[in-house]
Amino acid sequence: MSRPLAPGAPEVPHDHPDAPETDLRPIADAVAEHGAAGFVAVGDRFADDLRYLSRFGGPDRDYAVVVTPDRAALTAPGLFDEQAHREFVDGAPGDGIAREVRTEKQGDPAGVRGAAVLDDLRNDAGDPDSQTVLTPASIPHDAALYLEDAGYDLASTTAVADARERKTEAELACLRRVQAVTCRGMARAEAVLATAEPAGDDLLFDGEPLTTERLRREVDVEMARHGIRSAGNTVIGAGQTAADLHYTGIDHVSPGETVLLDVSPRGPHGYYGDLTRTFAVASEGGWERRAFVAVERAHGTALDHVEAGVTAGTVHEEAAAELTAHGFRIDSPEIGFTHGVGHGVGVSLHEGPSLRADTPLEPGNVVTIEPGVYDADTGGVRIEDLVAVTENGYERLATYPVRFTPVPPA
Amino acid sequence: MSRPLAPGAPEVPHDHPDAPETDLRPIADAVAEHGAAGFVAVGDRFADDLRYLSRFGGPDRDYAVVVTPDRAALTAPGLFDEQAHREFVDGAPGDGIAREVRTEKQGDPAGVRGAAVLDDLRNDAGDPDSQTVLTPASIPHDAALYLEDAGYDLASTTAVADARERKTEAELACLRRVQAVTCRGMARAEAVLATAEPAGDDLLFDGEPLTTERLRREVDVEMARHGIRSAGNTVIGAGQTAADLHYTGIDHVSPGETVLLDVSPRGPHGYYGDLTRTFAVASEGGWERRAFVAVERAHGTALDHVEAGVTAGTVHEEAAAELTAHGFRIDSPEIGFTHGVGHGVGVSLHEGPSLRADTPLEPGNVVTIEPGVYDADTGGVRIEDLVAVTENGYERLATYPVRFTPVPPA
Repeated sequence: MSRPLAPGAPEVPHDHPDAPETDLRPIADAVAEHGAAGFVAVGDRFADDLRYLSRFGGPDRDYAVVVTPDRAALTAPGLFDEQAHREFVDGAPGDGIAREVRTEKQGDPAGVRGAAVLDDLRNDAGDPDSQTVLTPASIPHDAALYLEDAGYDLASTTAVADARERKTEAELACLRRVQAVTCRGMARAEAVLATAEPAGDDLLFDGEPLTTERLRREVDVEMARHGIRSAGNTVIGAGQTAADLHYTGIDHVSPGETVLLDVSPRGPHGYYGDLTRTFAVASEGGWERRAFVAVERAHGTALDHVEAGVTAGTVHEEAAAELTAHGFRIDSPEIGFTHGVGHGVGVSLHEGPSLRADTPLEPGNVVTIEPGVYDADTGGVRIEDLVAVTENGYERLATYPVRFTPVPPA
Repeated sequence: MSRPLAPGAPEVPHDHPDAPETDLRPIADAVAEHGAAGFVAVGDRFADDLRYLSRFGGPDRDYAVVVTPDRAALTAPGLFDEQAHREFVDGAPGDGIAREVRTEKQGDPAGVRGAAVLDDLRNDAGDPDSQTVLTPASIPHDAALYLEDAGYDLASTTAVADARERKTEAELACLRRVQAVTCRGMARAEAVLATAEPAGDDLLFDGEPLTTERLRREVDVEMARHGIRSAGNTVIGAGQTAADLHYTGIDHVSPGETVLLDVSPRGPHGYYGDLTRTFAVASEGGWERRAFVAVERAHGTALDHVEAGVTAGTVHEEAAAELTAHGFRIDSPEIGFTHGVGHGVGVSLHEGPSLRADTPLEPGNVVTIEPGVYDADTGGVRIEDLVAVTENGYERLATYPVRFTPVPPA
């Protein structure tokens, strides 16, 4: 029971890709390099670092992942033992790290359990004299205190965030499918906009004035058909609310104004898509058209600079220069180009690398390219694609046409 | 373009309720009682405590909420100033707490910004001599260290978790609508099961063998039509995978086996629904039927005991006694009734109160009632409703029939 889509949306395979496996070697190497006893992370299934490290979609309660130079353990409630084995242990990659699930001490806090498991694992691996444990800086404070109570000194590490910036082929497969479904959601919204009828200040669709909420439901239903869910952030603004970076409210859509749709759903293994298009129905030109032309050029210019080895911040600077050349401000937090041109995407919607960083882009980085200009009195225009950095340029993870005037289904 | 539903699903109003307002008085009172300088919480828009305290659907980056006995502040990036005002300041309840948004020091970590804002607010309110700051125990460790660097001693507080257990009428309105939509998702799955045709080991639907993933997409699409999104945890298992508490994988559905659907989507203001039903198509009786009868009785018995003032754990004990009487084990983590009979639901899917606690139920608690029995070799049966505790009993937040054999659309 498909609904009509605007032309140009990709076909999407029915099945989800397999869950990626996580190479824990970079974490184990960080432990070895620091001469630490091990690494401990604590969080629940909503914590993206834990999701990445364990691939465990388990309970809402906190659990711990412990890594030493050659072993790794996940603490889980006994109820989730089988699931934890399936997701964390079975099919682990050939990274030389022996994985296990530990269900003892179930009533204790995850920090206590993590410390106890580390005491145990380090007998076989890790520096026997070290009392240092590496953790992400944002480990819950109570877990940090439990580790300190167990005799460990904490040192923060960026090893997990660094590893997450370089996607594997299995991760790219997840990102490609979710982004393709994102394109289909956009194509559904474009079809609705293209077939809506101007009537005074309204656009009529299904006999009712079209709202951003109706568009949002159309987008989210199309994605759900393919097993991809809105992450609660299907941003759709019209006119003044299109100038709001993250508008998820209810606004009427009027002829002529910019309609900005920024769609970033999440796939079953936690990977996000991220796609923005901006349309105007029955536009008379003016600011909306000028802004669209400028942003489309900036988008192309930014993409032209994406390549392994290029300093990330260059991509932002080039987009900014193009927008300046078109007469838009880049120096204000309120008007013009007010944000960075892009960010990494993975199991978090925002992760490294930032396209304002002074570090070089690496193959396997997945970043948004999303220049935009805003005027709170008038509207906003943003165009965004999701690309993987390659040795010689980039791969667009899914393609969808860039159009100012929405095109109806064929 | 609605799809046929099994009979008995509630009608759902088109519009979402308004966002609830948070009474910060219990947090401010905790500050005053402890003679503390203030309260600080740090997290991003995915942190449920922050969502509750601020109602701010802002950036993925960490931000801080600071509360003193009569003032409260939200630190936000300048880009989100307008949204933060709209969501945190405008329409604040009459709790006597003056709210403001602070955008200074944008580049600094949220813990640094929280400490600076607290320094400022405490000049006007709070104990001028105290260096104690109250925080949730799970505040990110780096934020805790920044607060300590700023001269504060940390003391953990359960004030936020405690406040969240007592829902306001506006919160109940959110929960009712999301639960009603959850029922419609279930009714769509029941309709699919009722119209699928047994063919050997398969159930054919749309000419293809029915899978848990197909059922999941049908449920999620129906909910998306009403603006409610799957939170990535539409649990559907069949046969052995029905014995898996949180099965979200792909399994074939066969005639006779139990099909367990546990649906817990999230509404636009962050509130969850939670509903479980278990069906069997063309059942020949046996374990599946006996388990269903026992669980249905336990569900009714548990509900009969829900009332303000009753010790929460009583509800669990009564359900367990009923299941014991039907010959099911309650003492194993692997077979029979392996989990608690219920938990609180709000902006987290699992929050207080637990129905194993020795504290009395209070009016405004919203809890699941979800007895179940499992046999990893055969299947699982669980029946779950979401109820609000009242002075004299409970209100089911939305109703949906309990049926073993799925019923087709009228």
